[in-house]
Amino acid sequence: MAFTAAVLGLGNIGRCVIRSLEQAPDFTCVGVVRRATSIGTTTYDLRGVPDFPSFDDLLNNVERPDVVIMGLPSRLSPHAAAELLSRGFNTVDSFDIHDRIVEVVGTLENKAEKGRAVAVTAAGWDPGTDSIMRTMFEAMAPVGTTFTNFGRGRSMGHSAACRSLPGIADATAITIPLGGGRHSRHVFVVLEKGCTQEQAYETIKADPYFAHDPLNVTVVRDSKELEMVADASHGVLMERVGASGAANNQHLTMEMRIDNPALTAQILVASARAAVRLCQMEKYGCYTLIDIPPIMLLPGDRMELLGRLV
Amino acid sequence: MAFTAAVLGLGNIGRCVIRSLEQAPDFTCVGVVRRATSIGTTTYDLRGVPDFPSFDDLLNNVERPDVVIMGLPSRLSPHAAAELLSRGFNTVDSFDIHDRIVEVVGTLENKAEKGRAVAVTAAGWDPGTDSIMRTMFEAMAPVGTTFTNFGRGRSMGHSAACRSLPGIADATAITIPLGGGRHSRHVFVVLEKGCTQEQAYETIKADPYFAHDPLNVTVVRDSKELEMVADASHGVLMERVGASGAANNQHLTMEMRIDNPALTAQILVASARAAVRLCQMEKYGCYTLIDIPPIMLLPGDRMELLGRLV
Repeated sequence: MAFTAAVLGLGNIGRCVIRSLEQAPDFTCVGVVRRATSIGTTTYDLRGVPDFPSFDDLLNNVERPDVVIMGLPSRLSPHAAAELLSRGFNTVDSFDIHDRIVEVVGTLENKAEKGRAVAVTAAGWDPGTDSIMRTMFEAMAPVGTTFTNFGRGRSMGHSAACRSLPGIADATAITIPLGGGRHSRHVFVVLEKGCTQEQAYETIKADPYFAHDPLNVTVVRDSKELEMVADASHGVLMERVGASGAANNQHLTMEMRIDNPALTAQILVASARAAVRLCQMEKYGCYTLIDIPPIMLLPGDRMELLGRLV
Repeated sequence: MAFTAAVLGLGNIGRCVIRSLEQAPDFTCVGVVRRATSIGTTTYDLRGVPDFPSFDDLLNNVERPDVVIMGLPSRLSPHAAAELLSRGFNTVDSFDIHDRIVEVVGTLENKAEKGRAVAVTAAGWDPGTDSIMRTMFEAMAPVGTTFTNFGRGRSMGHSAACRSLPGIADATAITIPLGGGRHSRHVFVVLEKGCTQEQAYETIKADPYFAHDPLNVTVVRDSKELEMVADASHGVLMERVGASGAANNQHLTMEMRIDNPALTAQILVASARAAVRLCQMEKYGCYTLIDIPPIMLLPGDRMELLGRLV
């Protein structure tokens, strides 16, 4: 019995979601909504997935999806999810603005309960699977410090945030770890006419995404030149040193080196599986990844998974 | 509102559980059952926790515990847990014989449902938190291979299994990683009178705990000499290389270097917290760590935890 999913947006995430759905043994992708701002979409091979200009067009043409996977920029995502939840659709998003997660969970919880639907939010790798790691590491060594060191790599969230700022035509933001959970940001920008490097720097520095970290801004000629630094490689090194009971010197480390949108998309698909199952169990509400039993992220029978993975 | 816990057994795990309970903000330890075989218990400082010769003695003297944390050898643990569950006590154990976990979950599930209680089984670091990692890594890169490389370190389960074999008076088993998820075992043994090194080797090699791996057996004079190799250091390196959707070359790694019984005990206490909460929600049954939302492992308010960890 396959679940059905629709994809909202056809940027980096949406495209990768389509590929991950194609490989999932328990999912069919009924269609994708191609937003006006979806980047470079004309040349993208949808491999048979039908595309629509709006979600209502999609609904008029294909089977009602069990879950809608959001491939929107973080800032647009909660509003769109809230509307879908109110209409009774399960949603999954990789909203990544850490400071706002509690607020977003509150909003979506309310809409999900009213719509008798399930939302999974902040379901990428950070926030997302990294959140599971931080939770587990703290349970394992309750006294101690965790450092989450991102990069070196291209931050999709920071790049998208930059592109939406006035004076900036295009941007790629690289996150560079400084150790101890601290980072600097190196942003490569294509300026709009009339905007200077200094103005771009001030605009970016004033944005909450960038306000807390050392910042470098490099101006490049055009989007073609920007492509030279816009590979999707990313990674994280999470380190906790702490104590379990009377035992100090507990060293817990997680490191990954990954294709960023592909991993985010894969986690969205795993979370979509959990969302549909939670809805079938009538456990309506808004979940983050730490609210979900990990086994729900995988297809297949519980006892088979226990035998193989526990 | 504090939860109450009793500890069954006062070996390496039981002792560390007492220390972790002492530090937990939401637990009180009502007592410990000191088994006849508990090692070196006469000199152990219980820091005010009352000890009893049997669980029924404990019940006759102190408050009924919300959860019983099992510090028994794995082979004795399921039977003891089943009996407690039948009597309506929640149990948590670090049963570690991977091949038997599915069977044990089935047995304990049945007893737990009948007793209207919750069991959390296989709740150490492997099986346990490593199981969460394997589950997460597979969700993140569904196509690929995971290697779990243990050690170098002392395996409590393998050491206890050895000590129970005929001809062996005392033993310490060291696990040495060979790469690719393969291991060799180096066992240091004190022989009983009449047992030779060759006999000890054959007896150990025939045990299911040791049958699959290269084995070395070194004879030492007495338990005093054994102490020289019996430190509780251990660790694991878990590596997954795989693909997320169309993206190959996804590298996911978890490594830890830890005091083994202290970490196991800490995870037992975190799991005990989840067990009591699940029982309060009337979700009776048997759980492994991958069946439990990670947030239930930590004390405190959900929204505070989401804000801090997601």
